[in-house]
Amino acid sequence: MSEQIGITVSKKENFSEWYTQVVLKAELADYAPVKGLIVLRPDGYSIWESIKDSLDKKFKKIGIRNGFLPVLIPESLLGKEKEHFSGFNPEVFWVTHSGNSEVGDRLALRPTSETLAYSLYSKWIKSWRDLPLKINFWNTALRAEIKATKPFIRTSEFLWQEGHTVHAAKDEAEAEVLEILETYKKTIEDELAIPVLVGKKSEKEKFVGAVYTTTMEAMMPDGKALQMGTSHFLGQNFSKPFEVKFSDRDNVETFVWQTSWGVSWRLIGAMIMIHGDDKGLVLPPKVAPIQVVIVPIYYTDEDEKKVLEKASEIEKTLEKKGLRVHVDKRSQLTPGFKFHDWELRGIPLRVEVGPKDLVKQKVVLVKRHSRQKTDVSLDKLENEIIPVLDEIQKEIFESAKKLLSQMTQKISDYDQFKSKIEAGGFFEAPWCGNQKCEEKIKEETGADIRVIPFDSKNADGKCILCKSKSVSNVVLARGY
Amino acid sequence: MSEQIGITVSKKENFSEWYTQVVLKAELADYAPVKGLIVLRPDGYSIWESIKDSLDKKFKKIGIRNGFLPVLIPESLLGKEKEHFSGFNPEVFWVTHSGNSEVGDRLALRPTSETLAYSLYSKWIKSWRDLPLKINFWNTALRAEIKATKPFIRTSEFLWQEGHTVHAAKDEAEAEVLEILETYKKTIEDELAIPVLVGKKSEKEKFVGAVYTTTMEAMMPDGKALQMGTSHFLGQNFSKPFEVKFSDRDNVETFVWQTSWGVSWRLIGAMIMIHGDDKGLVLPPKVAPIQVVIVPIYYTDEDEKKVLEKASEIEKTLEKKGLRVHVDKRSQLTPGFKFHDWELRGIPLRVEVGPKDLVKQKVVLVKRHSRQKTDVSLDKLENEIIPVLDEIQKEIFESAKKLLSQMTQKISDYDQFKSKIEAGGFFEAPWCGNQKCEEKIKEETGADIRVIPFDSKNADGKCILCKSKSVSNVVLARGY
Repeated sequence: MSEQIGITVSKKENFSEWYTQVVLKAELADYAPVKGLIVLRPDGYSIWESIKDSLDKKFKKIGIRNGFLPVLIPESLLGKEKEHFSGFNPEVFWVTHSGNSEVGDRLALRPTSETLAYSLYSKWIKSWRDLPLKINFWNTALRAEIKATKPFIRTSEFLWQEGHTVHAAKDEAEAEVLEILETYKKTIEDELAIPVLVGKKSEKEKFVGAVYTTTMEAMMPDGKALQMGTSHFLGQNFSKPFEVKFSDRDNVETFVWQTSWGVSWRLIGAMIMIHGDDKGLVLPPKVAPIQVVIVPIYYTDEDEKKVLEKASEIEKTLEKKGLRVHVDKRSQLTPGFKFHDWELRGIPLRVEVGPKDLVKQKVVLVKRHSRQKTDVSLDKLENEIIPVLDEIQKEIFESAKKLLSQMTQKISDYDQFKSKIEAGGFFEAPWCGNQKCEEKIKEETGADIRVIPFDSKNADGKCILCKSKSVSNVVLARGY
Repeated sequence: MSEQIGITVSKKENFSEWYTQVVLKAELADYAPVKGLIVLRPDGYSIWESIKDSLDKKFKKIGIRNGFLPVLIPESLLGKEKEHFSGFNPEVFWVTHSGNSEVGDRLALRPTSETLAYSLYSKWIKSWRDLPLKINFWNTALRAEIKATKPFIRTSEFLWQEGHTVHAAKDEAEAEVLEILETYKKTIEDELAIPVLVGKKSEKEKFVGAVYTTTMEAMMPDGKALQMGTSHFLGQNFSKPFEVKFSDRDNVETFVWQTSWGVSWRLIGAMIMIHGDDKGLVLPPKVAPIQVVIVPIYYTDEDEKKVLEKASEIEKTLEKKGLRVHVDKRSQLTPGFKFHDWELRGIPLRVEVGPKDLVKQKVVLVKRHSRQKTDVSLDKLENEIIPVLDEIQKEIFESAKKLLSQMTQKISDYDQFKSKIEAGGFFEAPWCGNQKCEEKIKEETGADIRVIPFDSKNADGKCILCKSKSVSNVVLARGY
């Protein structure tokens, strides 16, 4: 039974199949009947709720409020900023009928809401008093995926948030772009325990319609980079076609400066890939639906009663500390089966309570990620459990940072790069700034410029491809 | 200026226009470019967040967890329960293309998710151990509206939640239906301050596919009833076509028993209609985005400094109490303008701070709904503000209950009913239980059976229409 239930492939040998098995068998998600779409089961959605709550609190603290936009956007509106529209055109789902009637102007399912939001902003914003206007939308976006889809990583509908802010001054908007990126980074590192590289996208890779795009990139264990979220400076690229204008303090009409930014459930995919192991999911305590699972161990009816009583007592004590705790009281299942089951589901800390433990007035703690076991006396448990969870959170992050550092290297020789790119990873290389070099590298190696780090200056190097003077170091990788 | 900004019609004389002006001018919502769709601005969404938070906490306490379902449902799946499907068919938005390609099986935009959820449940549920399964989805539903649309009340896409639970036993499922209805009622009465009638829908009015539907009905000030939410007992009507089965403890395969239930942002519409007045919105403190607005009053620079300082001090004190407080520091606007503005937006309590008040060490409190003014000394303010807000919440609810009682009457004579129905309201009348009488009443008066109260028994009366023996009293009204 446990062979069928557990993960049947190793992470190292068949990463893609391993990933799918973890997603499905840990019951985070399942496939929907339409190809390329998934559903979230309660454990998967609970992780999204943790991410959402964390970001939402941070957004509200910096004056961002939430709103709601419908999913249907008229074709005429979507096409108003032409460059932007052409970027999404092949991916748009079109509604052509309602009931048995044809709709006039075709309706797009929201691939992103810049056009809809800004057509409204142009009505709402009149004076400098109305600025800044900072609204976020927790919704989904729909982009028909032609490439192979993968739960959380690439699906035709995905949960995300999209923020759209409007400012009177250019520098204020640019500061907002960075503040959001920093907010994202903090949540991703502190809660999901994933280290990210931050910086700008190249002109080729930026969001269609943006002046520039800032990004966070993470490295997956299979050597492919994953874009973790982006924050765009839109300048006046949208405010001009959509006529988002305001009267300034001197009563002069001026176009506004704008930003947009988003992260999606892709973050959950990255978390699974980076922390998981051959036994299944590994969850950082801060986002785990259950942080502590208590497994009672008994073989006689007499022991059962005693052990279950103690388990419930511990549960109550830990819940009072604000922890998410669960006692596995399922009968007819062996402790061994339960251990495997909770390991598969990635619950960070297991507390084992058996009759011998009770005699010694202690329990056994087992960390999911390292399987490290410790005895803790019952009277100390209450005060030690939160420090242990903090330790786990830290250890998981440290090991992810180690992985990132192992998979990142500097490189300046193109032939060397070509031979090494097969094994994957991040490559920091000097670049001349010429898009032709960028395109040729992509063509020959499949690698993109994932990010140009903010602090990257390399005026003394030579472009990895053309050997002319470099302008900066960029981070190259193949990506999802 | 204030004529254009404020509400220009009276609630009594032109209810429909009054409602639309309040929604738009209090900046709760605006029209989207597609007819029949609206967007929520931050104040409107914030009210939805309050409702959502309140319900979500209650759901979680009774073991309901959240999940995510995509918006696209294949036509073949939607049609699997034929009666159900035919109920939605004329309202469905259809996706026929993605990019430039035609999709095979047409894709419906979710009108409700029974079919999608249960096709998944049939995979997820195998044994009695998997039950009960209780999942809720916070999403939107899409139903193309042909009738005149109205913000919050009737729109082609609306925010709602839909819960779908699965049980091993019939009576357990029926208990769940009622527990949910009670949960809804509590939130609607305690937070939105709206009294509701609860009971069952008639066979004619029940949800398509349900065994029976329980409902909450409220009375709007224009005399029309509004359905506030429904909780359905589905029996095995869906588990049979979707093959949702489980092995019971004796290893016998059995079809499950199901429920589904939902409330939408329509609740916000009801709240606006019932509590609002000629000055605009009136918000119950529990759901108001801002509970207390502090308006500083000054005419000299010297006073300005003193008054603003005190206002900020009060703001901090009240925020520490966990209240949502705002100081209106906008310069160049008169106190009178500000009073009107916050009245339009329905903020429950205004604190006026002027130089004369400071000399007397007091402030003036003004309740939005009654415009009642009280002086409160500064040293008592901190402890009096929460009792005052509780008082407001209670007074608003009491006045809504009074309205409901004024608009509800017993009736047994059909001619009298026909003459009185024009003025609107709820009419409690004996009914024989025959659908033909129900249909004829609807045809001749426009009134439906809105609800059959749970405690309604009237075996001694005579049907209001056919005069044969009645089975129960029902509540008749014209509705939205």
